[in-house]
Amino acid sequence: MQIGMYGLGRMGANMARRLARRGHAPVVWNITPEPFAELAAEGAVVASSLADLVARLTAPRTVWLMLPAGAPTERAVEELSALLAPGDALVDGGNTFYKDDVRRAEQLRARGLHYLDVGTSGGVWGLERGYCLMIGGPAEPVARLGPVFRALAPGDLGLAPALAGAPPAATTAPHGFLHCGPAGAGHFVKMIHNGIEYGLMQAYAEGFDLLRHAGDAGRPEGQRYPLDLAAIAELWRRGSVVSSWLLDLAARALAEDPRLAAFSGRVADSGEGRWTLEAALEEAVPAGVLAAALFARFRSREEHGFADQLLSALRHQFGGHGEAPPAGGAKEGR
Amino acid sequence: MQIGMYGLGRMGANMARRLARRGHAPVVWNITPEPFAELAAEGAVVASSLADLVARLTAPRTVWLMLPAGAPTERAVEELSALLAPGDALVDGGNTFYKDDVRRAEQLRARGLHYLDVGTSGGVWGLERGYCLMIGGPAEPVARLGPVFRALAPGDLGLAPALAGAPPAATTAPHGFLHCGPAGAGHFVKMIHNGIEYGLMQAYAEGFDLLRHAGDAGRPEGQRYPLDLAAIAELWRRGSVVSSWLLDLAARALAEDPRLAAFSGRVADSGEGRWTLEAALEEAVPAGVLAAALFARFRSREEHGFADQLLSALRHQFGGHGEAPPAGGAKEGR
Amino acid sequence: MQIGMYGLGRMGANMARRLARRGHAPVVWNITPEPFAELAAEGAVVASSLADLVARLTAPRTVWLMLPAGAPTERAVEELSALLAPGDALVDGGNTFYKDDVRRAEQLRARGLHYLDVGTSGGVWGLERGYCLMIGGPAEPVARLGPVFRALAPGDLGLAPALAGAPPAATTAPHGFLHCGPAGAGHFVKMIHNGIEYGLMQAYAEGFDLLRHAGDAGRPEGQRYPLDLAAIAELWRRGSVVSSWLLDLAARALAEDPRLAAFSGRVADSGEGRWTLEAALEEAVPAGVLAAALFARFRSREEHGFADQLLSALRHQFGGHGEAPPAGGAKEGR
Amino acid sequence: MQIGMYGLGRMGANMARRLARRGHAPVVWNITPEPFAELAAEGAVVASSLADLVARLTAPRTVWLMLPAGAPTERAVEELSALLAPGDALVDGGNTFYKDDVRRAEQLRARGLHYLDVGTSGGVWGLERGYCLMIGGPAEPVARLGPVFRALAPGDLGLAPALAGAPPAATTAPHGFLHCGPAGAGHFVKMIHNGIEYGLMQAYAEGFDLLRHAGDAGRPEGQRYPLDLAAIAELWRRGSVVSSWLLDLAARALAEDPRLAAFSGRVADSGEGRWTLEAALEEAVPAGVLAAALFARFRSREEHGFADQLLSALRHQFGGHGEAPPAGGAKEGR
Repeated sequence: MQIGMYGLGRMGANMARRLARRGHAPVVWNITPEPFAELAAEGAVVASSLADLVARLTAPRTVWLMLPAGAPTERAVEELSALLAPGDALVDGGNTFYKDDVRRAEQLRARGLHYLDVGTSGGVWGLERGYCLMIGGPAEPVARLGPVFRALAPGDLGLAPALAGAPPAATTAPHGFLHCGPAGAGHFVKMIHNGIEYGLMQAYAEGFDLLRHAGDAGRPEGQRYPLDLAAIAELWRRGSVVSSWLLDLAARALAEDPRLAAFSGRVADSGEGRWTLEAALEEAVPAGVLAAALFARFRSREEHGFADQLLSALRHQFGGHGEAPPAGGAKEGR
Repeated sequence: MQIGMYGLGRMGANMARRLARRGHAPVVWNITPEPFAELAAEGAVVASSLADLVARLTAPRTVWLMLPAGAPTERAVEELSALLAPGDALVDGGNTFYKDDVRRAEQLRARGLHYLDVGTSGGVWGLERGYCLMIGGPAEPVARLGPVFRALAPGDLGLAPALAGAPPAATTAPHGFLHCGPAGAGHFVKMIHNGIEYGLMQAYAEGFDLLRHAGDAGRPEGQRYPLDLAAIAELWRRGSVVSSWLLDLAARALAEDPRLAAFSGRVADSGEGRWTLEAALEEAVPAGVLAAALFARFRSREEHGFADQLLSALRHQFGGHGEAPPAGGAKEGR
Repeated sequence: MQIGMYGLGRMGANMARRLARRGHAPVVWNITPEPFAELAAEGAVVASSLADLVARLTAPRTVWLMLPAGAPTERAVEELSALLAPGDALVDGGNTFYKDDVRRAEQLRARGLHYLDVGTSGGVWGLERGYCLMIGGPAEPVARLGPVFRALAPGDLGLAPALAGAPPAATTAPHGFLHCGPAGAGHFVKMIHNGIEYGLMQAYAEGFDLLRHAGDAGRPEGQRYPLDLAAIAELWRRGSVVSSWLLDLAARALAEDPRLAAFSGRVADSGEGRWTLEAALEEAVPAGVLAAALFARFRSREEHGFADQLLSALRHQFGGHGEAPPAGGAKEGR
Repeated sequence: MQIGMYGLGRMGANMARRLARRGHAPVVWNITPEPFAELAAEGAVVASSLADLVARLTAPRTVWLMLPAGAPTERAVEELSALLAPGDALVDGGNTFYKDDVRRAEQLRARGLHYLDVGTSGGVWGLERGYCLMIGGPAEPVARLGPVFRALAPGDLGLAPALAGAPPAATTAPHGFLHCGPAGAGHFVKMIHNGIEYGLMQAYAEGFDLLRHAGDAGRPEGQRYPLDLAAIAELWRRGSVVSSWLLDLAARALAEDPRLAAFSGRVADSGEGRWTLEAALEEAVPAGVLAAALFARFRSREEHGFADQLLSALRHQFGGHGEAPPAGGAKEGR
């Protein structure tokens, strides 16, 4: 099936590749030409401009955007809404805020264009493992794009179905893609997915931090355990309750270097975690774990914050206390 | 290999079963006789008393305890330390606090007995999937019991090793069991494992709660998504970053009933989560996610707490405010 | 000084009263007439309509809104912007979101009107104690309204200045009102004020909850303390580090009834707490205490949430565990 | 009244001073002699040894310890239990863990000695403002020491009673000291007091941090507020809901230097915060704010933690993501 792909970063290029490998016909375009040669060699048609990309597609056309959320995607939607014709579909596969989807879908609908928001999980592993696709938009173009979604998604992984004896799945979820609802529903589900991801990651992070401290010199004799974190991560992958794909990755990272010395510990966050919290505020849903996970990232990017300084200043004011010494003095609790 | 198994609840009985199926020779005992007939039929030798269980084993003996942590395990350790002979080994496979292990190991060492603490994860699925074993204790008896650990553990699951190109694993972790360190190390690692488990579970719980609220009647037109939670859980199992064994189970539970009506929502906690927090306090390790997860369980067991009442009382004092109406009034935020 | 006051709820009526008592000339209006008779008796001029209120004021006029934030205030701003003349000032003393102030100020500026946002703290006690005023808007009308602010504010309370030896305060802060910055700054500061308030309240709530549990029957012999919470609150008011006005109120509430039986524990939240969290998300500022305080209120309004049910369902899936019994079973931790 | 005082640090010396000023007769001792000259000049009797201190007191004697909790206090209790005679009383005014009080009280009771635990709040301001005293122990020696407690406590501060119209206080709480219960009750109440203190401090710290960020260059035009934090703190002292003694101190600190440049932001914690959390774990009381406050302190003493590094490593594993740049890159959220 023919499909335009605009945005050939790590994600977009691999998705075009996966589509080409599975017999589809991606027509690709990018702001800068670096990815063109390789993708052409792998079977993609390289357009000479965005207009050319559109011109090379047969109606009803589909253009899939794989661009940074925010301004770049917004601009591309505007440009394409002028280039596309009624009945065509625009797919936003990036990490867009779902309320922007709702607005855009309405604007494009007025011109007879379909807008689909497709939350995409899978990262750099997606080329090989496939992409988990959370889809929002009207039913007709979603159905029309079924073959594309099926090619991008992991497909049947040989996983046991969720429920033995359940009726044959009424949805495509077992193949790794799902039409979640109308405009915005795909990115809404992806947003919560990433909120959960932050929570899972922080749970492992705190746990391994505790394991690492178990070997500290200051611990009581007989309760000091210099543990092999890489081996423990590998172990937990086998039959434990905490086994997961993130744990697989933690095991890899720890096997490469149990001290993780290549990483300074300044952790970025990419929008969805914050939007998940905003959703929690809107819905009055307590989300203490998701909030704590996000704040840990914020904190990781600060040196000593003003908040900490104020605590020290207050302790000095009421108790004449000095500040704690670095590191070694950390455990004076009892 | 011959092994005594004392405690035939859900976990212990299945472990004896798994050992028998794999060619080992479990000799079993339990306070109450219900499990005896079935286990005998499956190849276990049923003792007539704890002393008889010991008498039926050839030295050096191994007795594996699979009893509730605390008093029942403590009592069994005392009884067995009188029945066993130097060179014998006592294995505590329950959820014991690791500091109790350290104390017991020292007491038994004085009598020439080995004490092993084996954190065991796998739950009701372990019979089929195998048990992930985290082992603490002296090297010699740990080595001697290798065949038993190997039979109980999941073994090579065909999982990719953590790191392609890594040297052949120097440990048994890829088989699902690991000698983590001296006395207490096994239960220490299991404790942190469960602390992480609480955090993971709460991350999913908050995320699915947010998904469920996406369909609320009060949401703005065009942003109301009555989502199919069971399908989303099934979807995320395929290629997403949040795929995990706990997600597999969430998908099962939601497939059975997307409203989870069989559950009231009073969530128990079993010790390890609290001990993990205690370890965080001892080590001055920030563990915001693990704490939030534990507190969510505490809160789930309360009706309206005194803390909430005090908040209402203060609002009444300073603002003359009344209390919020149930449910519907929950979203007055903006 | 003449001032129009629209909105005679608990706050607005008392503010009009305080102004009249201090020699100002409030002209008042309200949607419903209940407050009119009493306020007329206390010296306020009662208008017969909003237009009449404006007509009774001499230019440059000032109309102070004391209405619920959101739609009611928005409507009043629209109506008054049609009634007022260039040079007049509109004051929003309610709990408006500061971004709405920024928008409104710009709209009114285009018509030559001044818009002031005045965050107001003091609650039902303000009539007697005065109101703490956080003011945003242009300098000229803020200066013009100085006498009104001074009358509403607590004034010099005989409190020690913050810093002995400091230069005479360059601001009016010691009198209890402060021009914080341009449009929105007043409500921004009030928003953070309320965010802090939530955190303080929750800190006391958790602490008193712990004190109350100190008398629980299940505690070890010799560590069971049936404490007199009212007396402790009264005690802490005298010289302790945690003394505060909120503690004064907690002491009152506990003196009236140490069980707080009049309160069910469903705690409302009124917007600012959520907006404070939104500000934290926008600024990437870790705000774990403020978030935990807000989520405790959300949780207080739920029975057993779906999140809790999912935890129970997962525990049942992997461990065959039943749910915790109410209350009594809450402390099975170790 | 004659009283022995052992431990002349900041707290102990000032307490001896306050007692002397109010007509009591402190007999003092310290490990090192620096404080002796000044205290002698202020009317205290300086002993030449601990034994001499005891010898100078008339039975029934009272010795008040004001030593660091843990080993120093434990040693002093042992020494004094050998020196004192039946009917004498030992007072621990330090920050002892209440379970240690329970143990010691029992040991001393066996020798006919009284043990009192007195949680003491007031810090460096206590000399002038008085100390808030939370007292545990048997009724008789508590009553006997009434005049000493009354001299140390703030006394009637002219504060309104908690409840107008309440019956005359049945307790001494309005004078700033209270017999809370049997052995350990005083330090238990002080422990929770400090737990609350941590929560209050962190609430202010997060709030002022948000205020400080309101002036950030990256904020949208028209929503950038370079606020005067010192003035706002001073303002809030007057009539606002968040006024408190800690806010008084925050105002002082910010008036001295609104950037708090003298403080690096490594915040110590002194035991009670951790013990409060342990109490929450024991009692299954959700204490999210108190935990978040404590963890913020732990985190303030780390550079980039291992937990943060693991998050970065995972993001690199699944997404090929690099780390966030320092500072400036902190706000990429949307």
